[in-house]
Amino acid sequence: MKALQQQLDFLMQIDQLKAIYRQTTVKNDNDRQENSAEHSWHIALVAQVLQQYAAHNIDINRVTLMLLIHDIIEIDAGDLFAFAPQQHHQEQALKELAAAERLFGLLPHQQGEQMKTLWIEFEQAKSVDAQFAKAMDRILPLFQNMANHGGSWVKHSVKKQQILARNSYLQESAPKLWEYTCAQVDLAVNNGWLIDSE
Amino acid sequence: MKALQQQLDFLMQIDQLKAIYRQTTVKNDNDRQENSAEHSWHIALVAQVLQQYAAHNIDINRVTLMLLIHDIIEIDAGDLFAFAPQQHHQEQALKELAAAERLFGLLPHQQGEQMKTLWIEFEQAKSVDAQFAKAMDRILPLFQNMANHGGSWVKHSVKKQQILARNSYLQESAPKLWEYTCAQVDLAVNNGWLIDSE
Repeated sequence: MKALQQQLDFLMQIDQLKAIYRQTTVKNDNDRQENSAEHSWHIALVAQVLQQYAAHNIDINRVTLMLLIHDIIEIDAGDLFAFAPQQHHQEQALKELAAAERLFGLLPHQQGEQMKTLWIEFEQAKSVDAQFAKAMDRILPLFQNMANHGGSWVKHSVKKQQILARNSYLQESAPKLWEYTCAQVDLAVNNGWLIDSE
Repeated sequence: MKALQQQLDFLMQIDQLKAIYRQTTVKNDNDRQENSAEHSWHIALVAQVLQQYAAHNIDINRVTLMLLIHDIIEIDAGDLFAFAPQQHHQEQALKELAAAERLFGLLPHQQGEQMKTLWIEFEQAKSVDAQFAKAMDRILPLFQNMANHGGSWVKHSVKKQQILARNSYLQESAPKLWEYTCAQVDLAVNNGWLIDSE
């Protein structure tokens, strides 16, 4: 039963993702901050529901699993706001790699390696599955901020150009959703929720 | 873009699952109550990690999607404690069916019907996929309560026999996990976390 004990240890340690809080807020729950576990559930369903817009032949099951595990490393590394300075992102990448080694390393060897490999694929964002997964992860805060009168964009004075750059995987990965995103970004600028710095 | 609007409406309405609170608590977050969105994330990963114990030839991707959507109906119907009186469960079943009609009905017709059908399959628990999914949904609170000094069992004076009955899908669906569950239940009785009513 050693494998089972390792698996249960992993499953109980990832419970901690429920205590990692993000910048986005939950409109329907007194605007409390959203945690990364419930966020991971939400984007897995975003990918499932929007899969028809993928321009390439994606494997939705791999995409879903990528999204379910992609934030687990935050248990050790914390969540970094998407628009934090570049240097912070470089430090974060090293912390996240160490976190992936430790956390997926709790599992039986082969299973842990498979999950770590999938997580690295997501991070590198070179495969069509990873690019679609990244695109989903990044479009959800746009939906949320639009539903929330600008939400974390307003709080952190985010620029239109940052949102377009952040969502640019959509151009290749899901062109119809890219069109939608561009239109929403224009609307957000008109509403004063995003700054147009050009 | 009518389909996309319907899909976004669904994806924003299910955000409300983050405000549906359960009896289990999050040990790593000041023992606050767990919500059904983060619970759904957690059990999807429980199923992924423990899939090797399935006695039958399950489709883990269907199981995962079932688990991701299985609690959405609580947005309208609320969460009922597993050990509430039987009559409450009958009323709850009717509320949940109406909720499934409304919530999955927000989606484009075919997509909504597919999800509703999958949800009904889960509820009926006749297929091997649904039985494994149910078993995972029910074993997670056992892991959590064992890690949490009895947790919601102690609070609600739950009996050993209730936990064994609730986890009985495991007998057929994942016998090795059933063995583990029986041993954990005995340990919980010894620790005074479950009542042995025999």
